[in-house]
Amino acid sequence: MRYCFGIDIGGTTVKIGLFSISGEIIDKWEIKTHTENQGERILPDISESILNKLEEKKILKSDVNGIGIGVPAPVKADGIVKNTVNLGWKYKEVKREMEELSGLRTEVGNDANVAALGEMWLGAGKGQENMIMVTLGTGVGGGIIVDGKPLVGAHGAGGEIGHLCMNYEETEKCGCGNTGCLEQYASATGIVKLAEKRLKQDHVDSVLREKSVSAKAVFDALKAGDAVAAEIVEEFGRYLGHGLANLAVVTDPSVIVIGGGVSNAGDILLDYVKKYFQEKAFFANKNTEFILATLGNSAGICGAAKLIL
Amino acid sequence: MRYCFGIDIGGTTVKIGLFSISGEIIDKWEIKTHTENQGERILPDISESILNKLEEKKILKSDVNGIGIGVPAPVKADGIVKNTVNLGWKYKEVKREMEELSGLRTEVGNDANVAALGEMWLGAGKGQENMIMVTLGTGVGGGIIVDGKPLVGAHGAGGEIGHLCMNYEETEKCGCGNTGCLEQYASATGIVKLAEKRLKQDHVDSVLREKSVSAKAVFDALKAGDAVAAEIVEEFGRYLGHGLANLAVVTDPSVIVIGGGVSNAGDILLDYVKKYFQEKAFFANKNTEFILATLGNSAGICGAAKLIL
Repeated sequence: MRYCFGIDIGGTTVKIGLFSISGEIIDKWEIKTHTENQGERILPDISESILNKLEEKKILKSDVNGIGIGVPAPVKADGIVKNTVNLGWKYKEVKREMEELSGLRTEVGNDANVAALGEMWLGAGKGQENMIMVTLGTGVGGGIIVDGKPLVGAHGAGGEIGHLCMNYEETEKCGCGNTGCLEQYASATGIVKLAEKRLKQDHVDSVLREKSVSAKAVFDALKAGDAVAAEIVEEFGRYLGHGLANLAVVTDPSVIVIGGGVSNAGDILLDYVKKYFQEKAFFANKNTEFILATLGNSAGICGAAKLIL
Repeated sequence: MRYCFGIDIGGTTVKIGLFSISGEIIDKWEIKTHTENQGERILPDISESILNKLEEKKILKSDVNGIGIGVPAPVKADGIVKNTVNLGWKYKEVKREMEELSGLRTEVGNDANVAALGEMWLGAGKGQENMIMVTLGTGVGGGIIVDGKPLVGAHGAGGEIGHLCMNYEETEKCGCGNTGCLEQYASATGIVKLAEKRLKQDHVDSVLREKSVSAKAVFDALKAGDAVAAEIVEEFGRYLGHGLANLAVVTDPSVIVIGGGVSNAGDILLDYVKKYFQEKAFFANKNTEFILATLGNSAGICGAAKLIL
């Protein structure tokens, strides 16, 4: 049997998976991300953890294809990152350093692109070659798969779905400094803002007035038949559905996978998004399939492992 | 020396180029497109013309790498088109038929994608691997190059830049059936519509009131200092610049090439587009370069030839 490692480096923990090259997860675990001193221990910690695991499992290095790593930063094929605030890294040659530390071939990708690759390999997009993955969390992240590979772009910043401008009249600023970004309406935080704005408009009864609003509370209220919640989700669906129609006309995917915390709302979320996607989709994209992500937090380690294969 | 052919099939003429594989155009010529009887003569005519050229130039078939063909329809790697109205074709296995007719390896691509590839190989995008090409003609066409290859997508409909929705309030319909498509504002026809709308608003003096309006007339008036023309071009620049910012955040190109008849207006057009691109570009895309296309009508044959290399 041959093996590979998939690593997902986050600001608090590093997720590590040991895979067979055919895609079984043999073991997965986490270690702490030590971001102090410009994150100098992060890569040595990972290398040590991996080499210990090989010893524990009695796997020879020569039976390992290599290591794939997802990092929360733009990264190109050379595996160099310029500035990764969450990890404390400045300029860092991640690929070269990891290869020297571990003695194993290493490939590096952006975490959102890598998560998309994971869903394509082992999750909701299995068997697809052209896919968009949108991750609805605190922000809106994304990865675009073209012919089985992540769209990385000239600066490693491809697939920044959350910063499509969807509202040229918006005056409030997005975290990126622009105004009207998809992330301002379709993220968990964005949904809360849509809700707050709607609730201020009038005094129509709604369970959402009874406690502090969250994205989950909005979808729960929708499922319970709350009319105000339905209006809020319509607006969320309109921004996201229209945004995905604009993405589809450019990248022509066979499937759009929706993941992240907000997607725990389930199929009802897809109904609203599909409705508005259909309204604006180019005729060639009308049959694009929508699926909920299936790998959850493991998408990152799965996709990272696929990077090396 | 080794050779290849680049073919650009249009509704009235077929452009053919004989290239060295290093990118010199050795000869180029045109033949008529016979669209009658479901376009059954188109491919045999091309094959005959090519084989005659080889005889004329005393080039052996074994010295030819193959034939690249651009067609005005969505097309995937299998070289099959489903329905090409302009050529009279229904289902057609272009790649297989051409290989059988000519005895030469054939690759087929969408004409807009292929034109982008041409500008990347021998034109304005020389040396670039990640590029967007926008063609401003009667409509707005486009091709997106990712890692040196056209973004084809799941249905061969990738890069349909003209059908990005840029105005969700528009009530007039685009040719595609949707409303608010970029093509409705940034094509030659779109500019005329913007002009007609602006001229109706009031009676401010403008040379554009003196004759029938065309895209060229608008840019000529702008260059002559006409204030109304300047307002029209601002609006054109806003739609196109904002649209390209949305494209860039998805595909992260190093360069955007602008071609087609409207781009004959020259650098002044780029100034207006860049201004609005900068206004909405994601920070990672702010340095994207803008260049006018250089190959004109030959982009199609150049890119088609590159398909086979």
